[in-house]
Amino acid sequence: MRTIHITASTNYDVLIGTGLIDKSGELTAKVVKPCRCMIVADDTVDELYGDRVQISFSYAGFDARRFAFPAGEASKNLDTLGDILTAMGEAGLSRSDLVVALGGGVTGDMAGFAAAIYARGIRFVQVPTTLLAAVDSSVGGKTAVDMPFGKNMVGAFHQPSLVVTDTDVLRDLPAEQLSNGAAEAVKCGVLNDPELFALLETGDWQGRVDEVVARCVTYKRDVVARDEFDTGERALLNLGHTFGHAIEVCSNLTVLHGQAVGAGTLMAAAYAGCPEAMLRRVSDCLKANGLPTRFPYPAPALARAALSDKKRAGGVITLVLPLEIGRCELQKLPVDQLPACFEKALNVLEALDL
Amino acid sequence: MRTIHITASTNYDVLIGTGLIDKSGELTAKVVKPCRCMIVADDTVDELYGDRVQISFSYAGFDARRFAFPAGEASKNLDTLGDILTAMGEAGLSRSDLVVALGGGVTGDMAGFAAAIYARGIRFVQVPTTLLAAVDSSVGGKTAVDMPFGKNMVGAFHQPSLVVTDTDVLRDLPAEQLSNGAAEAVKCGVLNDPELFALLETGDWQGRVDEVVARCVTYKRDVVARDEFDTGERALLNLGHTFGHAIEVCSNLTVLHGQAVGAGTLMAAAYAGCPEAMLRRVSDCLKANGLPTRFPYPAPALARAALSDKKRAGGVITLVLPLEIGRCELQKLPVDQLPACFEKALNVLEALDL
Repeated sequence: MRTIHITASTNYDVLIGTGLIDKSGELTAKVVKPCRCMIVADDTVDELYGDRVQISFSYAGFDARRFAFPAGEASKNLDTLGDILTAMGEAGLSRSDLVVALGGGVTGDMAGFAAAIYARGIRFVQVPTTLLAAVDSSVGGKTAVDMPFGKNMVGAFHQPSLVVTDTDVLRDLPAEQLSNGAAEAVKCGVLNDPELFALLETGDWQGRVDEVVARCVTYKRDVVARDEFDTGERALLNLGHTFGHAIEVCSNLTVLHGQAVGAGTLMAAAYAGCPEAMLRRVSDCLKANGLPTRFPYPAPALARAALSDKKRAGGVITLVLPLEIGRCELQKLPVDQLPACFEKALNVLEALDL
Repeated sequence: MRTIHITASTNYDVLIGTGLIDKSGELTAKVVKPCRCMIVADDTVDELYGDRVQISFSYAGFDARRFAFPAGEASKNLDTLGDILTAMGEAGLSRSDLVVALGGGVTGDMAGFAAAIYARGIRFVQVPTTLLAAVDSSVGGKTAVDMPFGKNMVGAFHQPSLVVTDTDVLRDLPAEQLSNGAAEAVKCGVLNDPELFALLETGDWQGRVDEVVARCVTYKRDVVARDEFDTGERALLNLGHTFGHAIEVCSNLTVLHGQAVGAGTLMAAAYAGCPEAMLRRVSDCLKANGLPTRFPYPAPALARAALSDKKRAGGVITLVLPLEIGRCELQKLPVDQLPACFEKALNVLEALDL
């Protein structure tokens, strides 16, 4: 088992290893005195792992309850949040009790947000069951729900007390879900880690998933430690997200987050003027991981969609632009230049047929 | 104009004086660079003061928008919160923009909570229009909405950037609203300030409302500075609130918060075994301010209602018990002793006919 220690307003460990889901209660009991807990999952994950996690927490001395909501990004809204909070209230959770977020990014974001605002904040533990959640969303304390006017537009910063990542669960994921998570790892490689990028380029890293997760978490740990509340450097983690966010909105959220971020990372590199060889490497890396490189949405529609992004402060948006594999920089762009920005990125990719 | 400087995770000023509502924009511009802002009020307050505040903010350079929701505690829920957030999103507020909470406790709590979670937290300014909000809820950063399973059960700690209290607005309040706020001032006197209590005992302090507000805010400021996140001493501010909360729940929220807190303070003193002379002083002080001293709910119903209070941690509740006028202490009570506790308080008051 690997242990990565995170330093933020709350310090906590990320545990990565085989067979951890059946020890999740026992591992949690080492940092949270057994209490009442609500295990929150979507109905798919609840069916797959709910019993095992509940048994583990009960065996460790917790009074473990469960709440399941309908699977899918469409559930990530204020209504489902209200359902989760009501289940917590009806189960009689008090300030000293616990939420267990069992699932992917939707569950982690939403159950974490429920924990952030229930009784003005109670503790929670992340048990990510997707690669995307393991490498990215389960670490760093960003919680949220979607609103009709934008993704993740309502939320809180709330750090978990523990993250328990079972690599067996990740290896059992369907190929599409693995690809979806690989995209955030590719992003992480382009941002900071040429060795990770090289591993991902092979497309054959499933036997080393613990290393992929550990490298991504370690990098994110360092960034979050320096900028927990996202007022500066943390914006780097948004590589591919302004472009990707626009793709997700244009697709009515039918495109998976990782797919959008992967293609968005390539668009960012294209807009940044990276040399053709690097663009081909990024494009080939996405393909090697079963990820699309382009979507059919035109620049004006993407630019309009990007405007609903909360990374916009006043009339300016902060873009993350790759310089080389392993190094990126921030660049502020007036929002009225977004259409031209999307146009340029798409034209570069079109010309190179990437 | 009096200025009270608050030290918390965000430092800010509470301004108290005559005619401030028409200067609210100008005063805000000294601490928040003019930006887009959403003035949130209930429909009653919006009609009374919305135009004046919007003009003041516009004149000071803000792009000032307004949103009004139906007046009343029944609006303090997740649905109205969603409406406020949607109005903010549709107005295109970004991370660097501002919420102005114009109104009483319901508006301050709910608009403050909307600011706390919109884009994971934007700034807000409190413009309290009730005495209750001016002396208590506008200061200290507690924001929340009610849930079916309990009052203020979902919320956040989020400090305002400024509090602007216009004493002319307070003096124009209907008598019932002034009484409602006076109850929190009586609580503050019993907690910490014998001089304030003596002033309130006269029932004739309306000409010195700025002093009443300033004394309450100064005391709260000191407590919040030492315990912003309510893990210890801040529990003192809940004097009368465990008993009062139970009264509010039993009345289906038809009893005003201040009325409940006033009667709850008397119950706490009765349970604490305070001498008859002190109980009579508290009772007479409530009456002098047009506040009821007792409600007809029986002890078992009150105890059940008290169980939905989030001040409960595990099986224990923290009571605030008066020792003398100006001094109180915390006492932990197992929740199974709540029925006996309510029974004792009611019996003491019954025997003394208070």
